Amino acid sequence: MPAKKAAKPKKKATRPALFISTDDILAHWQGHRRLTRRVIEAFPDDKLFTFSVGGMRTFGELANELLGMAAPMAHGLATLDWNGYTPKRGKTKAEVLKAWDASTPDIEAWFKKIPKGRFQETITSFGQYTGPGHWQILYIVDNEIHHRGQGYVYLRALGIDPPPFYDRS
Amino acid sequence: MPAKKAAKPKKKATRPALFISTDDILAHWQGHRRLTRRVIEAFPDDKLFTFSVGGMRTFGELANELLGMAAPMAHGLATLDWNGYTPKRGKTKAEVLKAWDASTPDIEAWFKKIPKGRFQETITSFGQYTGPGHWQILYIVDNEIHHRGQGYVYLRALGIDPPPFYDRS
Repeated sequence: MPAKKAAKPKKKATRPALFISTDDILAHWQGHRRLTRRVIEAFPDDKLFTFSVGGMRTFGELANELLGMAAPMAHGLATLDWNGYTPKRGKTKAEVLKAWDASTPDIEAWFKKIPKGRFQETITSFGQYTGPGHWQILYIVDNEIHHRGQGYVYLRALGIDPPPFYDRS
Repeated sequence: MPAKKAAKPKKKATRPALFISTDDILAHWQGHRRLTRRVIEAFPDDKLFTFSVGGMRTFGELANELLGMAAPMAHGLATLDWNGYTPKRGKTKAEVLKAWDASTPDIEAWFKKIPKGRFQETITSFGQYTGPGHWQILYIVDNEIHHRGQGYVYLRALGIDPPPFYDRS
């Protein structure tokens, strides 16, 4: 009698292990945005759009870039409409802070409308950036941390102590 | 006959919705580390430990800080031993790059040994930082992005084009 073939082990359809939930990453993101707000505030009014180092953009310009990406990303992932929403930006420190505060509840509301499965789907955002939903959000958060780190150098070069990195309250 | 009380809706023990999996965040982290490696490489040998802006630490010192946090965090979350592992650091660009490359497989190996539930548990790392496992890892990644952003300013101030932020290959 021929030997029986060993039974194939059954493949289990396992869910990927959770690193962080959608609720927790939203809280994490908003914590970073609170810190970035304090960095904007730390600039003297007359330096936010005039001072930079090494020929780079001013922190005011960088903050406007961040504004142009954050809420539109949450809106886009929720609706798959990548053009329908443009938040205000600012030309003065007061205007930038006002626009920042206007984006906060918009990000919160749109993020919560993103279908849960979308973070694992491959999406093309703004007609050109293709990757999973989680990558889209992390790109926005990471880009904010990156530029804010540059703002820390500008503040130090101006002789101003930046707010502590670990405080996201 | 008295009206029947409406049946209470059954409470479902729902799992939190997945934003990103443990495998995907590890890949994301290593992508950032590849970019940081290129930023270290972009510094002239004689500037990595001598040049800075605004009285800040040099990028060599910052890179050593990152080395001292990354693999020890993965090791600590895997073993809950917060003192048993100290990676090498460097005093020259070649030494820092060598230490960086030595940490890469260590992070990979230790991260994969972290019990999956640990990312949602509250942990105290290094005897002093208390928060969920996911927060511990994100703090390390975010701190790397933050300091690397500062390295970008140093490079620009030196007249050197930094590597593109979006390229994590």
